[in-house]
Amino acid sequence: MPTQIKNLGHCTIDSPLLKKYSQRDAAFVDDNIRVRLNAFIGKNPPKGGEYIDNFEAAGPREKIFFQPEKTKVAITSCGGLCPGINDVIRSLVMESYYGYGVQNIIGIPYGYNGLNPDYNYKPVSLSPDFVKSIHMQGGSILGSSRGGTKDMDGLVDTLEKLNVNILYTIGGDGTLRGAHEIAMIATKRGLRLAVVGIPKTIDNDISFIQRSFGFETAFSIAVEAIYAAHTEAEGAPNGIGLVKLMGRHSGFIAANAAIASSDVNFVLLPEVPFELEGPNGLYAHLEERLKRRGHAVICVAEGAGQEILQKDSEKKYDASGNLKLADIGIYLKEKIQEYFNKKGIEINLKYIDPSYMIRSAPAVPNDSIYCTLLGQNAVHAGMAGKTDLVIGQWSNIYTHVPIEVAISQRKRIDPHSRFYSSVLDATGQPSSMINE
Amino acid sequence: MPTQIKNLGHCTIDSPLLKKYSQRDAAFVDDNIRVRLNAFIGKNPPKGGEYIDNFEAAGPREKIFFQPEKTKVAITSCGGLCPGINDVIRSLVMESYYGYGVQNIIGIPYGYNGLNPDYNYKPVSLSPDFVKSIHMQGGSILGSSRGGTKDMDGLVDTLEKLNVNILYTIGGDGTLRGAHEIAMIATKRGLRLAVVGIPKTIDNDISFIQRSFGFETAFSIAVEAIYAAHTEAEGAPNGIGLVKLMGRHSGFIAANAAIASSDVNFVLLPEVPFELEGPNGLYAHLEERLKRRGHAVICVAEGAGQEILQKDSEKKYDASGNLKLADIGIYLKEKIQEYFNKKGIEINLKYIDPSYMIRSAPAVPNDSIYCTLLGQNAVHAGMAGKTDLVIGQWSNIYTHVPIEVAISQRKRIDPHSRFYSSVLDATGQPSSMINE
Amino acid sequence: MPTQIKNLGHCTIDSPLLKKYSQRDAAFVDDNIRVRLNAFIGKNPPKGGEYIDNFEAAGPREKIFFQPEKTKVAITSCGGLCPGINDVIRSLVMESYYGYGVQNIIGIPYGYNGLNPDYNYKPVSLSPDFVKSIHMQGGSILGSSRGGTKDMDGLVDTLEKLNVNILYTIGGDGTLRGAHEIAMIATKRGLRLAVVGIPKTIDNDISFIQRSFGFETAFSIAVEAIYAAHTEAEGAPNGIGLVKLMGRHSGFIAANAAIASSDVNFVLLPEVPFELEGPNGLYAHLEERLKRRGHAVICVAEGAGQEILQKDSEKKYDASGNLKLADIGIYLKEKIQEYFNKKGIEINLKYIDPSYMIRSAPAVPNDSIYCTLLGQNAVHAGMAGKTDLVIGQWSNIYTHVPIEVAISQRKRIDPHSRFYSSVLDATGQPSSMINE
Amino acid sequence: MPTQIKNLGHCTIDSPLLKKYSQRDAAFVDDNIRVRLNAFIGKNPPKGGEYIDNFEAAGPREKIFFQPEKTKVAITSCGGLCPGINDVIRSLVMESYYGYGVQNIIGIPYGYNGLNPDYNYKPVSLSPDFVKSIHMQGGSILGSSRGGTKDMDGLVDTLEKLNVNILYTIGGDGTLRGAHEIAMIATKRGLRLAVVGIPKTIDNDISFIQRSFGFETAFSIAVEAIYAAHTEAEGAPNGIGLVKLMGRHSGFIAANAAIASSDVNFVLLPEVPFELEGPNGLYAHLEERLKRRGHAVICVAEGAGQEILQKDSEKKYDASGNLKLADIGIYLKEKIQEYFNKKGIEINLKYIDPSYMIRSAPAVPNDSIYCTLLGQNAVHAGMAGKTDLVIGQWSNIYTHVPIEVAISQRKRIDPHSRFYSSVLDATGQPSSMINE
Repeated sequence: MPTQIKNLGHCTIDSPLLKKYSQRDAAFVDDNIRVRLNAFIGKNPPKGGEYIDNFEAAGPREKIFFQPEKTKVAITSCGGLCPGINDVIRSLVMESYYGYGVQNIIGIPYGYNGLNPDYNYKPVSLSPDFVKSIHMQGGSILGSSRGGTKDMDGLVDTLEKLNVNILYTIGGDGTLRGAHEIAMIATKRGLRLAVVGIPKTIDNDISFIQRSFGFETAFSIAVEAIYAAHTEAEGAPNGIGLVKLMGRHSGFIAANAAIASSDVNFVLLPEVPFELEGPNGLYAHLEERLKRRGHAVICVAEGAGQEILQKDSEKKYDASGNLKLADIGIYLKEKIQEYFNKKGIEINLKYIDPSYMIRSAPAVPNDSIYCTLLGQNAVHAGMAGKTDLVIGQWSNIYTHVPIEVAISQRKRIDPHSRFYSSVLDATGQPSSMINE
Repeated sequence: MPTQIKNLGHCTIDSPLLKKYSQRDAAFVDDNIRVRLNAFIGKNPPKGGEYIDNFEAAGPREKIFFQPEKTKVAITSCGGLCPGINDVIRSLVMESYYGYGVQNIIGIPYGYNGLNPDYNYKPVSLSPDFVKSIHMQGGSILGSSRGGTKDMDGLVDTLEKLNVNILYTIGGDGTLRGAHEIAMIATKRGLRLAVVGIPKTIDNDISFIQRSFGFETAFSIAVEAIYAAHTEAEGAPNGIGLVKLMGRHSGFIAANAAIASSDVNFVLLPEVPFELEGPNGLYAHLEERLKRRGHAVICVAEGAGQEILQKDSEKKYDASGNLKLADIGIYLKEKIQEYFNKKGIEINLKYIDPSYMIRSAPAVPNDSIYCTLLGQNAVHAGMAGKTDLVIGQWSNIYTHVPIEVAISQRKRIDPHSRFYSSVLDATGQPSSMINE
Repeated sequence: MPTQIKNLGHCTIDSPLLKKYSQRDAAFVDDNIRVRLNAFIGKNPPKGGEYIDNFEAAGPREKIFFQPEKTKVAITSCGGLCPGINDVIRSLVMESYYGYGVQNIIGIPYGYNGLNPDYNYKPVSLSPDFVKSIHMQGGSILGSSRGGTKDMDGLVDTLEKLNVNILYTIGGDGTLRGAHEIAMIATKRGLRLAVVGIPKTIDNDISFIQRSFGFETAFSIAVEAIYAAHTEAEGAPNGIGLVKLMGRHSGFIAANAAIASSDVNFVLLPEVPFELEGPNGLYAHLEERLKRRGHAVICVAEGAGQEILQKDSEKKYDASGNLKLADIGIYLKEKIQEYFNKKGIEINLKYIDPSYMIRSAPAVPNDSIYCTLLGQNAVHAGMAGKTDLVIGQWSNIYTHVPIEVAISQRKRIDPHSRFYSSVLDATGQPSSMINE
Repeated sequence: MPTQIKNLGHCTIDSPLLKKYSQRDAAFVDDNIRVRLNAFIGKNPPKGGEYIDNFEAAGPREKIFFQPEKTKVAITSCGGLCPGINDVIRSLVMESYYGYGVQNIIGIPYGYNGLNPDYNYKPVSLSPDFVKSIHMQGGSILGSSRGGTKDMDGLVDTLEKLNVNILYTIGGDGTLRGAHEIAMIATKRGLRLAVVGIPKTIDNDISFIQRSFGFETAFSIAVEAIYAAHTEAEGAPNGIGLVKLMGRHSGFIAANAAIASSDVNFVLLPEVPFELEGPNGLYAHLEERLKRRGHAVICVAEGAGQEILQKDSEKKYDASGNLKLADIGIYLKEKIQEYFNKKGIEINLKYIDPSYMIRSAPAVPNDSIYCTLLGQNAVHAGMAGKTDLVIGQWSNIYTHVPIEVAISQRKRIDPHSRFYSSVLDATGQPSSMINE
C-alpha cells in the first residue's frame, strides 16, 4: 500500500516560520525524512494486514504552497464527542493565525452536515480570541454529528462557494472516508483544496497511529468509574462491580484502565473471546473469586462477547428483521445475577456505564499537548499543500499517513502480545476463559 | 411528640475531657441547653407534621455515665453506600480512644447482619492506626448491607455476648427503626447499652436535621454529571442531556445540583407533580426550548413523576402481581424520544445515571468536617449514657434528636418555599408543568 | 446598633415575580419577617461586641421600588480574588435580567478604580449570554483591585453620569466602607441609587454572617495542600510539613482544613497565642511528636503568632521606619530548622504556601449555590430600593445586614467555644502552648 | 559505550510464567531482540553525547536465573518524592509474588540509609495485601532519603546479612551511581545479587529513556498552578503570574506544562539562555505584552537563568565562601517588580511555587500504567539474573539500559529541535531573548 503523500503542487513560497525559527536549523522537516514503523531489531514485524515500512515525517516545510494572506481555512468536527476536540480546533486556529498569518478561518457547525446545502447551518468565524479558552471545555464548540456523507459532491460545492483552500476534518473512520472522497472530487475538479484529517477515535483503534487523542483522557476517567465499582463491590457481601467501557472493536480503553486502576479482576475485550458457562468460563472464575475474596470487579468493553450475544437463544430482531445485539454490559449484569440466583448465592451487583461522562470531559494535560501538536502539524501539512492525509504519530514522532492507509485496517490488541500479557499480570485473570 | 432524650442513668464520672479542655469553660454543654427550631420572628412555623419547638444541644458533658477503661464500643454501618461513612467511623474511633480513653472498639461487618448469629461474620478490632487514613476512601471499611432487622432479639443477644456498652449505628430510616428496637429491648432487659444513631441518607430527607452527611458530596458530583449532559447536549443538533439523580421521596440532590451547575433547564422532583403532554407539559416546554436554543438539559430525581408512571397504560406486574414501577429516567428517555420521533424532529438524547459513582465517592472536605463532628458528638452522647437518639444539626448547632422523632416524618422540599423559588429562578423552568 | 434597613422610598410597583411565582404564597418575604441570631435556649449569647438580636429576612418583596425596564444596574468586584466572584456576578445578571426584566446591566472593571474618572476604564455590558459560563472560571471576569476609595465623590459623579440605579459591590471590609460612603453621598445628593453589598472575605471573618462565599472552596483546596505536606512529612526521616494558609485575623480556613484533613498535628491560629520555647512551647511538643511518630504536620494561619514576631529581636523596619512584620510561615520554617539544628537532630522540613492556588480556584458546588442565592437576594433587595446593606446568612436563612453593622466588628474563633474544642480533638494538639 | 547487559549467570530454570502465558508465543522476549534508538530514516541522529544504536528489549525470559521459592527480594526508594513511587513498589511486589511466586519480599526504609548498619531502620515485610492500595497515595510508603552512599561496602554487608538476591532501587542519578557500585562490589564478592534500577527523575532528564515516571503527573499538576497564575494575572490591572517549576538541568516540565496549559506567554528553560535587560530582553517583551494585553504569565524552570544569577552583582556567599545562587523564581519576582517600579508602571505580580504539591501527588493513570509496567519489567530482568541495569523505554518499548549508560549524560531539550519550536508556537514568545 503506497505511503506517499499527495501534494496539490510545487511549494514555492517561503514559510513565514523561517523568520520565527531563525537559527533553529532542525525546526524544519524535509519531505524525504521518514519514520520507521518497526523499532525492533531481530524481531519480525507483526503479521496480518498489509506491511508498511515507514511514513513521511510531519512538520513545517521551508517552502509552502498556499500564500497565507489569500488562504481560507475551514474546520469541522464529526461523529461522537471525544476529549480534546476543542484543543485541536484551538491549535488549528492559533497555528494558522499566529504561525502562518492566515486570518480567514471558519468553523463548520455539526460536521459534514454543516456543509450540506439542505441544512441551514451558517459557518462561524474563528479568531484567536474566540478560541483561546475553549480547551477548558469538553465537547466541541462547533458541535458534531454523524453522517452527512451521502451527497459528497454537494459538500464540495459548498466548499467551492465558500472558497475554502484547506479543510481540516476532525473525525473517525466514516469522517476520513468522507475526507478522502472530498479530496478525490477536489482533484477531479482541479480545485486548490487540501484536505487534512486529524484522526479522532476515543477507542484508539486507528491503524499505524500510535495513539489517538482523547484516548488517554478516556481511560483516565474510566479509572474513576472502576474505583467506584471497586468501592461498591467491597461495600457489600459478595459485591460485584461491573463497568462497561467504550471499545467496539478494540479494547484499549478497558485494558489500560484495568492496568491503571489495578482493581479489576476480569477485563473482557473484543479481541479475546470468552465463555460464560463451564469450568473455565467467567461464571466459575467469578464464583471462585467471590469465595476467596468476597468481592470482584469486572470491566467489559462494549464490543466484547459478541460471539456470546450472537449465540444467545433470546435473539431479538428489529422491525426490518435485522438481528439486534443486546448490550453486553446489561446482558452480563442480568446473566450473572441469574447464575447466582440459581445457585442460591446472594450477590450484590452494581452496574456502571460511564460512557457519556467520559466522552464529554475536557482533555487531560497530556492529551492537550498531543492535540496541540496534532493541530500544529496539520496546519504545517495543509499550508504545504499536502492533501488526502491524516496526521499520525509513531515512535513519538509526528507523521503523514495517507487516509486510505489509515482506514485500511483497524488497530487491535494482539492477545499474543507482551501488552496483553501485562494486562493478565495486572488483573490476575486466567490466560483464557474458553473451555477446551 | 416528646423531644426528651433517654438516659441510661445518672452521670457521676468526671469526663476525661475536663483535663484536656482546662480553662475552656464553654467547651462543655449542659443538658438544659436547647436549640430552637424556628429561627424566624414574625413568620409562622411550617405547617404539616407534628410541631416541635426545640431539641437538646449535643456536646460533651462534664459528668459521664460510662467508665472509659471498662467500656466496649461497637460500630456498624447499614444500607446503601454514602460518602462520609468512613469519616464517621474514623471520628467515632478517634474520639472514643483519644478523647475518652476507650480502647475496646469493634466494628460489626455488613450492618445488622453482622450481629445476626446465623451469619458467620467476625467483628473487627478498630484502633486509631487502623482507621487513620480510611476517610480517603469511599464506601465503608466495615461493609454495609440492608435488612437484618427481623430477629432483633437475636441481635441484642449478640451485643450482650460481646459485652457491648455503646452501639453506634450509621444508617437510614430502617436502620434507625432497628436501633430504636434495640434500645427498647435493651431497656427491657436492663442492659447498660446505649444506642446512638448517626443518620445516613444521601437524599437528605431526615426530618428535623438540617442536612445529612454525604449529601453535599452527592450533589457536588452530580454537578459533574450535569456538566457532561450539558456538553453532550451542546455537542449535537437538538441535543438533550438527561440526568437521573438519587432522591426517592425528596429532590434535594437534584435541586441543589441544578442550582450549583446552572446548566439545568428542567429539574423534576418528587415533591412537584408534572405532566408530559399538553400545552403546559414537559414535552411542549422542551420542544420550545429546543427551537429557541438548540439544546436542553433535564435533571430528574428518581422519585419524580410517580403519578405518571402509575397512570401509564403499559403497567408491568412482577411475579406476585405487584405493580412494578418503571425507572423514571429510562421512562423519560424513551418517551421523549418517542414524542420527537412522532413529530419528525430529530433529537440527540444522551442519558446519564451517575448514581453509583456518586454513592461511592470519598466525602468532600465540608462533609468530612460534618462527619467528624457528628462522630465526636455521638461519642459525647454515648459516653454520657444517652440512648435511643440520633445526632442532628439545626441552625448549625449539633443536637440530640430522639430516634422516634427523627423517623416520624420525612423532610421534603416545600414547593411553596423560598428555596423552590430559587430553583425556579436558577433553571428558568415554568412555575408549574400541570395543564389547568 | 440599629439593624433597620434603609429604603430609597416606598415600594409601589408590582414585582414581575408575582406572575412567575403564581400560587407560591411563601415565595415572597415581608419586611417584618426577621431572623433571630441566638438559636440557643438556656444559653447566654456570646459576650463582647455589641449585642444584636435579629435581622430583617432577605427575599423578594411583592412590591418593588424600581421600574425594571427603566433601571440601570452596575456590578463591581474589589480586593483580592476569592472563589465564587464570577458565580455572584452571573447570578446578579441572571436574576436582574430573567427575574425582573432589567436589561441595562454593566460591569465596572477593576473595582472602584473602574469608577474613578482619572482612569480610563470602560464599563462592560453584561448580558446572560456573556455570563452564562463564567462560573466555571476562577477569578473575576471584571478584574478586581484594591483601593480606589480616596475620591468617593468622584466615584458617585461617575455613577450619576452613567445613570446607575443599583450598584452591587462584591468586596470585603474596605469595599463595604466605600459602599457605605457611596450610599451616604447618594442620600445627600438625593439620588435614586441603591447600594447593595455582597460581602467577600475568603477568611470568613465578617460578623453576623454565618459564612462568606468562597470560604468553603478555600479550606477544601487547603486540604489538598495539607495532604501534600503530610505526604512529604511521611516520606522522609523526621519529616515536617508546614503549610501556611490565609487568615489574617481569623483562623477559620486553617481550623476547618485541619478538621477536614485530619492530618494536621498542630494548627496555629491568630485567635490563640502560643509560645515557641519552653517545656510547653511548640518546639518541645513538635520534638516529642517526632520522637513518637517520626513526622508531623503544622498548619499556620498567616495572622498567627503576631505576638512572637513583634517580640523577635530581629525586627525589620521599612524605609519609613515602620515595623515590617515577618511572614509567620517563613519565620517558623527558619526557626524550627534552627531549633533542631542546634539540637543536632536532622529534620526534613517542607514548606507549602498555596494561597494563590486557593484564591484563584473556581467555587466548589456548595459555594456556587451560596453565591447564586446571595446574588438573587441582592437583586431582590436592590429592586426593592433597599440600600446601604449587605446580604448575609444566619441559621441558613438569608438576611439584610446594614453595612455599618457588618463592618463594626470581626468574626473570630472563640478559643473557649465548642468549635475550638473540636479542633483540639481533631488535631490532638495541646489545649494550650503557653508556658505557665 | 557498551550496551550489553550483565548477567549473573546462565538461565536454566523454566519461568513460572510459561504456564500462565500458555499459547501466548509473543509474550516472552529473547535476549537478542533489540530496540532501535533512531526511528528516523534520512535524518542524522542527534549530535553530541556518545552515539548508541540500540538496546536490549525488556520482558520476561522463558528461562530464568533465580529459583522463585528460594529468592529474597528487597525494594528501596531514594531521593526526593516523585509521583508513582508507590505504583512501582506495588508492581514489584505483585509481579514477584503472583507472577513468579516469590514470597520473601522486604522494603528498605528511607533509601540507602535503610541499609546503613549505623542507622537503626528495620526492613518491612511487603505482601500483596500490604501494597494493594498504596498506589492511591502519593509519596513513598517506604519513605525516601538522599545520600547514604558513603559506605557502599557496609550497605552490601547488610544485603548479604539479609540474604537479598535482587535489589530493586527506585531513584535518580545518585541512586543509580550507588546501585552501580553495589553491583560492582557484589560481582567482586561473587554474590548472587542482582541490582535492577527503576529510574526516578521527575525532571525527565535521564538519557536514552523516553520519559521518566511521575513526569506526566508533574506537568499535569503544574498546569493547575499555571491556571491559577493566569487567573490572578487576568484578575488585576497589569497582572503578572509567575510560576516556578521543577527542572534543574532540563526544562521538560515547564515546556510541557506551557504547551498543555496554553496560558503561558514566556517559558524560561535551563537549556535556553535569556537576558533580562535590553531591547530583546525579558523585561522589554514583558512590558510590551502588558501594554498589548494587560496581563502576562511567565513559567520558569528552577534551573533557568543560571548565567544571570552568576553575573548578578549581589552575589551571596555562604559561610564557607561558596557562591550561593539565588532562587531564580524569587529573583525574577523581585527584579521584575523593581523594573516596573523604576518605570513607574504599577503591576500586580503573583508568585507561585507549587513544587511540593506536585512531588507528593499520586500518579495520574497514564503514569500508573507506566509504573506498573516498569515494575513488571524490572522483575522480569531481576528474575533472569540481569544486573547493573535500569529499565527504560524507547519508541514505547521497554528496554534494558546499563546503568553506566543511563548516567553517562543528561537528557535535555534541544533548542534547535522541532519540540522547542512547538513550545515557541504554543507560547508565542520570541525565538530568542538575547540581545545581538
